Amino acid sequence: MRVIVPFDSCNPKTRLSEVLSPSEREGFATAMLADVLDAVDAAAESPTVLASGPVGIDAADTIVDERPLSTAVNDQLRTATEPVAVLMADLPLATASALDRLFSASGEVVLARGVGGGTNALVVRRPEFTVDYHDASYLDHLAIARDRGLAVEELDSYSLGIDVDEPADLAEVLLHTDGRSARWLRSAGFTLATDDGRVGVVRAERPAVEARE
Amino acid sequence: MRVIVPFDSCNPKTRLSEVLSPSEREGFATAMLADVLDAVDAAAESPTVLASGPVGIDAADTIVDERPLSTAVNDQLRTATEPVAVLMADLPLATASALDRLFSASGEVVLARGVGGGTNALVVRRPEFTVDYHDASYLDHLAIARDRGLAVEELDSYSLGIDVDEPADLAEVLLHTDGRSARWLRSAGFTLATDDGRVGVVRAERPAVEARE
Repeated sequence: MRVIVPFDSCNPKTRLSEVLSPSEREGFATAMLADVLDAVDAAAESPTVLASGPVGIDAADTIVDERPLSTAVNDQLRTATEPVAVLMADLPLATASALDRLFSASGEVVLARGVGGGTNALVVRRPEFTVDYHDASYLDHLAIARDRGLAVEELDSYSLGIDVDEPADLAEVLLHTDGRSARWLRSAGFTLATDDGRVGVVRAERPAVEARE
Repeated sequence: MRVIVPFDSCNPKTRLSEVLSPSEREGFATAMLADVLDAVDAAAESPTVLASGPVGIDAADTIVDERPLSTAVNDQLRTATEPVAVLMADLPLATASALDRLFSASGEVVLARGVGGGTNALVVRRPEFTVDYHDASYLDHLAIARDRGLAVEELDSYSLGIDVDEPADLAEVLLHTDGRSARWLRSAGFTLATDDGRVGVVRAERPAVEARE
Protein backbone atom coordinates (compact mmCIF):
# COMPACT_ATOMS: atom_id res chain seq x y z
CA MET A 1 0.00 0.00 0.00
CA ARG A 2 1.31 3.44 -0.94
CA VAL A 3 0.08 5.98 1.65
CA ILE A 4 -0.05 9.60 0.55
CA VAL A 5 -0.74 12.50 2.91
CA PRO A 6 -1.36 15.76 1.04
CA PHE A 7 -0.31 18.83 3.00
CA ASP A 8 -0.93 22.46 2.18
CA SER A 9 2.03 24.31 3.62
CA CYS A 10 1.01 27.72 2.24
CA ASN A 11 -1.18 29.66 4.70
CA PRO A 12 -2.85 26.53 6.09
CA LYS A 13 -6.05 26.33 8.13
CA THR A 14 -7.40 29.77 7.33
CA ARG A 15 -10.70 28.95 9.00
CA LEU A 16 -8.81 28.88 12.30
CA SER A 17 -7.70 32.50 11.81
CA GLU A 18 -10.19 33.64 14.42
CA VAL A 19 -8.26 31.81 17.15
CA LEU A 20 -4.72 31.32 15.76
CA SER A 21 -2.18 33.68 14.21
CA PRO A 22 -0.66 32.76 10.82
CA SER A 23 2.49 31.33 12.40
CA GLU A 24 0.41 29.44 14.96
CA ARG A 25 -1.72 27.96 12.20
CA GLU A 26 1.43 26.76 10.51
CA GLY A 27 2.70 25.21 13.75
CA PHE A 28 -0.59 23.54 14.55
CA ALA A 29 -1.06 22.23 10.99
CA THR A 30 2.42 20.73 11.17
CA ALA A 31 1.60 19.09 14.52
CA MET A 32 -1.52 17.54 12.99
CA LEU A 33 0.48 16.27 10.03
CA ALA A 34 2.99 14.72 12.43
CA ASP A 35 0.15 12.96 14.27
CA VAL A 36 -1.17 11.52 11.01
CA LEU A 37 2.30 10.33 10.00
CA ASP A 38 2.76 8.74 13.44
CA ALA A 39 -0.56 6.89 13.04
CA VAL A 40 0.48 5.59 9.61
CA ASP A 41 3.79 4.40 11.06
CA ALA A 42 1.91 2.71 13.91
CA ALA A 43 -0.24 0.95 11.30
CA ALA A 44 2.98 -0.43 9.78
CA GLU A 45 2.91 1.58 6.56
CA SER A 46 5.32 4.25 5.28
CA PRO A 47 3.71 7.60 4.53
CA THR A 48 4.67 9.95 1.72
CA VAL A 49 3.87 13.64 2.23
CA LEU A 50 2.57 15.32 -0.92
CA ALA A 51 3.21 18.95 -0.07
CA SER A 52 2.46 22.22 -1.82
CA GLY A 53 5.74 23.64 -0.48
CA PRO A 54 8.42 23.08 2.14
CA VAL A 55 7.30 21.09 5.20
CA GLY A 56 8.62 21.86 8.68
CA ILE A 57 9.13 18.29 9.87
CA ASP A 58 11.41 15.43 9.03
CA ALA A 59 9.12 13.30 6.94
CA ALA A 60 10.43 9.99 5.73
CA ASP A 61 9.47 10.85 2.19
CA THR A 62 8.22 14.15 0.78
CA ILE A 63 7.16 15.13 -2.72
CA VAL A 64 6.60 18.80 -3.47
CA ASP A 65 3.89 19.47 -6.05
CA GLU A 66 2.55 23.00 -6.30
CA ARG A 67 -0.43 22.08 -8.42
CA PRO A 68 -3.97 22.01 -6.98
CA LEU A 69 -4.75 19.14 -4.61
CA SER A 70 -6.88 17.02 -6.97
CA THR A 71 -4.38 17.38 -9.82
CA ALA A 72 -1.45 16.39 -7.64
CA VAL A 73 -3.28 13.39 -6.13
CA ASN A 74 -4.52 12.19 -9.51
CA ASP A 75 -0.99 12.28 -10.81
CA GLN A 76 0.04 10.01 -7.94
CA LEU A 77 -2.89 7.67 -8.65
CA ARG A 78 -2.08 7.57 -12.36
CA THR A 79 1.51 6.51 -11.82
CA ALA A 80 0.87 4.08 -8.95
CA THR A 81 1.95 0.46 -9.20
CA GLU A 82 0.17 -0.69 -6.04
CA PRO A 83 -2.99 0.31 -4.10
CA VAL A 84 -2.91 3.91 -2.89
CA ALA A 85 -4.34 5.36 0.30
CA VAL A 86 -4.84 9.12 0.53
CA LEU A 87 -5.24 10.59 4.01
CA MET A 88 -5.86 14.22 4.77
CA ALA A 89 -3.23 15.84 6.98
CA ASP A 90 -5.74 17.34 9.43
CA LEU A 91 -6.93 14.13 11.08
CA PRO A 92 -5.28 14.21 14.51
CA LEU A 93 -7.79 11.67 15.86
CA ALA A 94 -6.53 9.05 13.38
CA THR A 95 -5.41 5.86 15.11
CA ALA A 96 -3.52 2.81 13.95
CA SER A 97 -6.63 0.69 14.43
CA ALA A 98 -8.77 3.01 12.30
CA LEU A 99 -6.07 2.96 9.61
CA ASP A 100 -5.86 -0.84 9.84
CA ARG A 101 -9.59 -0.95 9.12
CA LEU A 102 -9.11 1.46 6.21
CA PHE A 103 -6.16 -0.36 4.67
CA SER A 104 -7.77 -3.79 5.04
CA ALA A 105 -11.24 -2.85 3.76
CA SER A 106 -12.01 -4.76 0.63
CA GLY A 107 -13.55 -2.32 -1.87
CA GLU A 108 -11.95 -1.40 -5.18
CA VAL A 109 -12.46 2.07 -3.75
CA VAL A 110 -12.76 2.62 0.02
CA LEU A 111 -14.10 5.98 1.20
CA ALA A 112 -14.14 7.54 4.67
CA ARG A 113 -16.34 10.59 4.97
CA GLY A 114 -15.47 13.79 6.76
CA VAL A 115 -17.72 16.31 8.47
CA GLY A 116 -19.46 18.54 5.95
CA GLY A 117 -19.21 16.27 2.93
CA GLY A 118 -15.47 15.91 2.59
CA THR A 119 -13.49 12.76 1.87
CA ASN A 120 -10.98 12.43 4.68
CA ALA A 121 -9.45 9.15 3.62
CA LEU A 122 -9.69 6.79 0.70
CA VAL A 123 -8.05 3.74 -0.75
CA VAL A 124 -7.87 3.21 -4.51
CA ARG A 125 -7.17 -0.21 -6.01
CA ARG A 126 -8.17 0.50 -9.60
CA PRO A 127 -6.66 2.92 -12.14
CA GLU A 128 -10.07 4.08 -13.39
CA PHE A 129 -10.72 6.05 -10.23
CA THR A 130 -9.80 9.73 -9.98
CA VAL A 131 -10.37 12.23 -7.20
CA ASP A 132 -12.16 15.57 -7.19
CA TYR A 133 -11.83 17.27 -3.83
CA HIS A 134 -14.04 20.26 -4.53
CA ASP A 135 -17.27 20.93 -2.60
CA ALA A 136 -19.12 17.81 -1.42
CA SER A 137 -16.32 15.54 -2.55
CA TYR A 138 -17.71 12.49 -0.76
CA LEU A 139 -20.80 12.43 -2.97
CA ASP A 140 -18.67 13.13 -6.02
CA HIS A 141 -16.34 10.26 -5.17
CA LEU A 142 -19.28 7.89 -4.71
CA ALA A 143 -20.60 8.99 -8.11
CA ILE A 144 -17.22 8.66 -9.84
CA ALA A 145 -16.82 5.12 -8.51
CA ARG A 146 -20.36 4.19 -9.51
CA ASP A 147 -20.01 5.68 -12.98
CA ARG A 148 -16.86 3.64 -13.54
CA GLY A 149 -18.39 0.42 -12.24
CA LEU A 150 -16.13 0.14 -9.21
CA ALA A 151 -17.09 -1.61 -5.97
CA VAL A 152 -17.12 0.90 -3.12
CA GLU A 153 -16.80 0.22 0.56
CA GLU A 154 -17.75 3.08 2.87
CA LEU A 155 -15.66 3.01 6.03
CA ASP A 156 -17.61 4.11 9.10
CA SER A 157 -15.01 5.85 11.27
CA TYR A 158 -15.31 8.79 13.65
CA SER A 159 -11.57 9.07 14.17
CA LEU A 160 -11.01 9.45 10.43
CA GLY A 161 -14.19 11.51 10.05
CA ILE A 162 -13.17 14.46 12.19
CA ASP A 163 -10.99 16.83 10.20
CA VAL A 164 -9.93 19.92 12.08
CA ASP A 165 -10.91 23.05 10.16
CA GLU A 166 -12.92 25.25 12.49
CA PRO A 167 -12.51 26.46 16.08
CA ALA A 168 -15.20 24.06 17.39
CA ASP A 169 -13.17 21.13 16.03
CA LEU A 170 -10.33 21.90 18.43
CA ALA A 171 -12.44 20.43 21.23
CA GLU A 172 -12.31 17.04 19.50
CA VAL A 173 -8.52 17.09 19.66
CA LEU A 174 -8.48 17.84 23.38
CA LEU A 175 -11.28 15.37 24.10
CA HIS A 176 -9.98 12.34 22.28
CA THR A 177 -6.24 12.54 21.68
CA ASP A 178 -3.01 12.98 23.52
CA GLY A 179 -0.69 13.45 20.57
CA ARG A 180 1.33 16.35 19.29
CA SER A 181 -1.71 18.37 18.20
CA ALA A 182 -3.29 18.10 21.63
CA ARG A 183 -0.02 19.03 23.33
CA TRP A 184 0.37 21.95 20.93
CA LEU A 185 -3.10 23.25 21.80
CA ARG A 186 -2.56 22.86 25.53
CA SER A 187 0.77 24.66 25.38
CA ALA A 188 -0.97 27.47 23.49
CA GLY A 189 -3.45 27.85 26.35
CA PHE A 190 -6.46 25.98 25.01
CA THR A 191 -8.65 24.00 27.41
CA LEU A 192 -12.06 22.40 27.15
CA ALA A 193 -15.05 24.57 28.02
CA THR A 194 -18.48 23.19 28.78
CA ASP A 195 -21.77 24.97 28.58
CA ASP A 196 -25.24 23.64 27.91
CA GLY A 197 -24.44 22.16 24.52
CA ARG A 198 -21.37 20.60 23.01
CA VAL A 199 -18.01 20.96 24.64
CA GLY A 200 -15.92 23.74 23.11
CA VAL A 201 -12.59 25.33 23.87
CA VAL A 202 -11.40 28.50 25.55
CA ARG A 203 -7.96 30.01 25.32
CA ALA A 204 -6.23 31.49 28.33
CA GLU A 205 -5.29 35.14 28.17
CA ARG A 206 -1.58 35.29 27.67
CA PRO A 207 0.57 38.09 29.02
CA ALA A 208 0.87 40.78 26.37
CA VAL A 209 4.62 40.88 26.68
CA GLU A 210 5.08 43.37 23.89
CA ALA A 211 2.82 45.89 25.57
CA ARG A 212 4.65 45.86 28.88
CA GLU A 213 7.16 48.37 30.01
CA MET B 1 -29.93 -7.17 24.28
CA ARG B 2 -32.35 -4.59 25.63
CA VAL B 3 -32.18 -1.48 23.42
CA ILE B 4 -33.32 1.78 24.96
CA VAL B 5 -33.78 5.00 23.00
CA PRO B 6 -34.32 8.00 25.28
CA PHE B 7 -36.47 10.70 23.69
CA ASP B 8 -37.19 14.17 24.98
CA SER B 9 -40.64 14.99 23.71
CA CYS B 10 -40.88 18.34 25.54
CA ASN B 11 -39.58 21.23 23.40
CA PRO B 12 -36.95 19.10 21.64
CA LYS B 13 -33.93 20.33 19.68
CA THR B 14 -33.91 23.91 20.94
CA ARG B 15 -30.56 24.56 19.24
CA LEU B 16 -32.38 24.23 15.92
CA SER B 17 -34.70 27.11 16.84
CA GLU B 18 -32.87 29.39 14.45
CA VAL B 19 -34.06 27.33 11.47
CA LEU B 20 -37.15 25.42 12.69
CA SER B 21 -40.33 26.50 14.48
CA PRO B 22 -41.34 24.66 17.68
CA SER B 23 -43.81 22.40 15.87
CA GLU B 24 -41.23 21.75 13.14
CA ARG B 25 -38.64 20.80 15.75
CA GLU B 26 -41.12 18.34 17.19
CA GLY B 27 -41.83 16.86 13.75
CA PHE B 28 -38.17 16.60 12.84
CA ALA B 29 -37.19 15.13 16.21
CA THR B 30 -39.89 12.50 15.77
CA ALA B 31 -38.62 11.70 12.26
CA MET B 32 -35.11 11.21 13.64
CA LEU B 33 -36.45 8.94 16.39
CA ALA B 34 -38.29 6.89 13.74
CA ASP B 35 -35.03 6.53 11.77
CA VAL B 36 -33.22 5.27 14.86
CA LEU B 37 -36.00 2.79 15.63
CA ASP B 38 -35.94 1.58 12.01
CA ALA B 39 -32.18 1.02 12.24
CA VAL B 40 -32.59 -0.98 15.46
CA ASP B 41 -35.29 -3.09 13.81
CA ALA B 42 -32.99 -3.62 10.80
CA ALA B 43 -30.29 -4.79 13.23
CA ALA B 44 -32.76 -7.42 14.48
CA GLU B 45 -33.34 -5.94 17.92
CA SER B 46 -36.51 -4.51 19.47
CA PRO B 47 -36.21 -0.92 20.69
CA THR B 48 -37.89 0.55 23.74
CA VAL B 49 -38.48 4.30 23.72
CA LEU B 50 -37.79 5.93 27.08
CA ALA B 51 -39.73 9.16 26.67
CA SER B 52 -40.15 12.23 28.82
CA GLY B 53 -43.75 12.53 27.63
CA PRO B 54 -46.13 11.39 24.89
CA VAL B 55 -44.44 10.32 21.63
CA GLY B 56 -46.04 11.01 18.25
CA ILE B 57 -45.25 7.67 16.61
CA ASP B 58 -46.34 4.08 17.04
CA ALA B 59 -43.36 2.69 18.88
CA ALA B 60 -43.35 -1.01 19.63
CA ASP B 61 -42.69 -0.30 23.27
CA THR B 62 -42.68 3.02 25.11
CA ILE B 63 -41.95 3.87 28.73
CA VAL B 64 -42.73 7.38 29.94
CA ASP B 65 -40.38 8.64 32.63
CA GLU B 66 -40.43 12.35 33.37
CA ARG B 67 -37.25 12.33 35.43
CA PRO B 68 -33.96 13.71 34.08
CA LEU B 69 -32.25 11.63 31.40
CA SER B 70 -29.46 10.14 33.52
CA THR B 71 -31.85 9.22 36.33
CA ALA B 72 -34.27 7.54 33.96
CA VAL B 73 -31.52 5.61 32.15
CA ASN B 74 -29.84 4.52 35.38
CA ASP B 75 -33.15 3.16 36.59
CA GLN B 76 -33.35 1.06 33.43
CA LEU B 77 -29.78 -0.16 33.92
CA ARG B 78 -30.39 -1.00 37.58
CA THR B 79 -33.38 -3.20 36.82
CA ALA B 80 -31.98 -4.86 33.68
CA THR B 81 -31.67 -8.63 33.45
CA GLU B 82 -29.68 -8.64 30.20
CA PRO B 83 -27.13 -6.35 28.46
CA VAL B 84 -28.54 -2.89 27.73
CA ALA B 85 -27.80 -0.62 24.78
CA VAL B 86 -28.69 3.06 25.03
CA LEU B 87 -28.92 5.00 21.77
CA MET B 88 -29.67 8.68 21.49
CA ALA B 89 -32.76 9.50 19.42
CA ASP B 90 -31.01 12.10 17.26
CA LEU B 91 -28.79 9.75 15.23
CA PRO B 92 -30.43 9.67 11.80
CA LEU B 93 -27.21 8.40 10.21
CA ALA B 94 -27.38 5.22 12.31
CA THR B 95 -27.32 2.08 10.17
CA ALA B 96 -27.96 -1.56 10.89
CA SER B 97 -24.31 -2.35 10.24
CA ALA B 98 -23.09 0.30 12.69
CA LEU B 99 -25.53 -1.05 15.28
CA ASP B 100 -24.37 -4.61 14.58
CA ARG B 101 -20.83 -3.48 15.36
CA LEU B 102 -22.08 -1.77 18.55
CA PHE B 103 -24.14 -4.71 19.76
CA SER B 104 -21.43 -7.26 19.01
CA ALA B 105 -18.49 -5.31 20.48
CA SER B 106 -17.01 -7.19 23.36
CA GLY B 107 -16.39 -4.70 26.19
CA GLU B 108 -18.14 -4.83 29.53
CA VAL B 109 -18.93 -1.26 28.56
CA VAL B 110 -18.95 -0.16 24.91
CA LEU B 111 -18.93 3.58 24.19
CA ALA B 112 -19.54 5.47 20.93
CA ARG B 113 -18.59 9.12 21.08
CA GLY B 114 -20.61 11.99 19.69
CA VAL B 115 -19.45 15.34 18.35
CA GLY B 116 -18.58 17.71 21.18
CA GLY B 117 -17.91 15.14 23.88
CA GLY B 118 -21.27 13.42 24.09
CA THR B 119 -21.97 9.70 24.35
CA ASN B 120 -24.24 8.85 21.47
CA ALA B 121 -24.47 5.14 22.08
CA LEU B 122 -23.33 2.67 24.70
CA VAL B 123 -23.73 -0.92 25.71
CA VAL B 124 -23.62 -1.94 29.35
CA ARG B 125 -23.02 -5.54 30.39
CA ARG B 126 -22.24 -5.00 34.07
CA PRO B 127 -24.46 -3.62 36.84
CA GLU B 128 -21.67 -1.48 38.34
CA PHE B 129 -21.84 1.00 35.45
CA THR B 130 -24.02 4.08 35.66
CA VAL B 131 -24.46 6.95 33.21
CA ASP B 132 -24.00 10.68 33.67
CA TYR B 133 -25.00 12.55 30.55
CA HIS B 134 -23.99 16.03 31.66
CA ASP B 135 -21.28 18.05 29.89
CA ALA B 136 -18.44 15.97 28.39
CA SER B 137 -20.22 12.73 29.16
CA TYR B 138 -17.87 10.65 27.04
CA LEU B 139 -14.91 11.42 29.29
CA ASP B 140 -17.09 10.92 32.37
CA HIS B 141 -18.23 7.53 31.09
CA LEU B 142 -14.66 6.46 30.41
CA ALA B 143 -13.74 7.52 33.96
CA ILE B 144 -16.73 5.78 35.54
CA ALA B 145 -15.87 2.53 33.78
CA ARG B 146 -12.19 2.81 34.73
CA ASP B 147 -12.99 3.63 38.36
CA ARG B 148 -15.18 0.54 38.58
CA GLY B 149 -12.64 -1.73 36.94
CA LEU B 150 -14.71 -2.41 33.83
CA ALA B 151 -13.25 -3.26 30.42
CA VAL B 152 -14.18 -0.58 27.90
CA GLU B 153 -14.34 -0.86 24.15
CA GLU B 154 -14.53 2.40 22.25
CA LEU B 155 -16.52 2.00 19.05
CA ASP B 156 -15.17 4.10 16.20
CA SER B 157 -18.27 5.05 14.19
CA TYR B 158 -19.12 8.16 12.21
CA SER B 159 -22.72 7.15 11.65
CA LEU B 160 -23.28 6.82 15.39
CA GLY B 161 -21.05 9.83 16.10
CA ILE B 162 -23.11 12.46 14.33
CA ASP B 163 -25.95 13.60 16.56
CA VAL B 164 -28.09 16.33 15.05
CA ASP B 165 -28.26 19.31 17.36
CA GLU B 166 -27.24 22.37 15.37
CA PRO B 167 -28.14 23.79 11.95
CA ALA B 168 -24.81 22.72 10.41
CA ASP B 169 -25.61 19.10 11.35
CA LEU B 170 -28.59 19.09 9.00
CA ALA B 171 -26.17 18.85 6.09
CA GLU B 172 -25.01 15.45 7.39
CA VAL B 173 -28.57 14.15 7.15
CA LEU B 174 -28.96 15.30 3.55
CA LEU B 175 -25.48 14.11 2.58
CA HIS B 176 -25.56 10.62 3.99
CA THR B 177 -29.10 9.37 4.51
CA ASP B 178 -32.33 8.85 2.66
CA GLY B 179 -34.59 8.08 5.61
CA ARG B 180 -37.49 9.86 7.19
CA SER B 181 -35.36 12.68 8.59
CA ALA B 182 -33.87 13.45 5.19
CA ARG B 183 -37.28 13.34 3.54
CA TRP B 184 -38.65 15.59 6.28
CA LEU B 185 -35.90 18.15 5.66
CA ARG B 186 -36.35 18.06 1.90
CA SER B 187 -40.09 18.51 2.19
CA ALA B 188 -39.45 21.50 4.47
CA GLY B 189 -37.35 23.09 1.73
CA PHE B 190 -33.81 22.28 2.89
CA THR B 191 -31.13 21.55 0.33
CA LEU B 192 -27.36 21.27 0.44
CA ALA B 193 -25.38 24.46 -0.05
CA THR B 194 -21.71 24.50 -0.94
CA ASP B 195 -19.27 27.31 -0.45
CA ASP B 196 -15.54 27.26 0.15
CA GLY B 197 -15.67 25.21 3.32
CA ARG B 198 -17.93 22.45 4.54
CA VAL B 199 -21.23 21.77 2.91
CA GLY B 200 -24.16 23.39 4.73
CA VAL B 201 -27.85 23.78 4.08
CA VAL B 202 -30.13 26.49 2.81
CA ARG B 203 -33.89 26.62 3.14
CA ALA B 204 -36.10 27.73 0.27
CA GLU B 205 -38.24 30.78 0.83
CA ARG B 206 -41.77 29.58 1.15
CA PRO B 207 -44.76 31.62 -0.01
CA ALA B 208 -46.00 33.72 2.89
CA VAL B 209 -49.57 32.57 2.35
CA GLU B 210 -50.91 34.40 5.34
CA ALA B 211 -49.65 37.71 4.07
CA ARG B 212 -51.31 37.43 0.68
CA GLU B 213 -54.53 39.11 -0.26
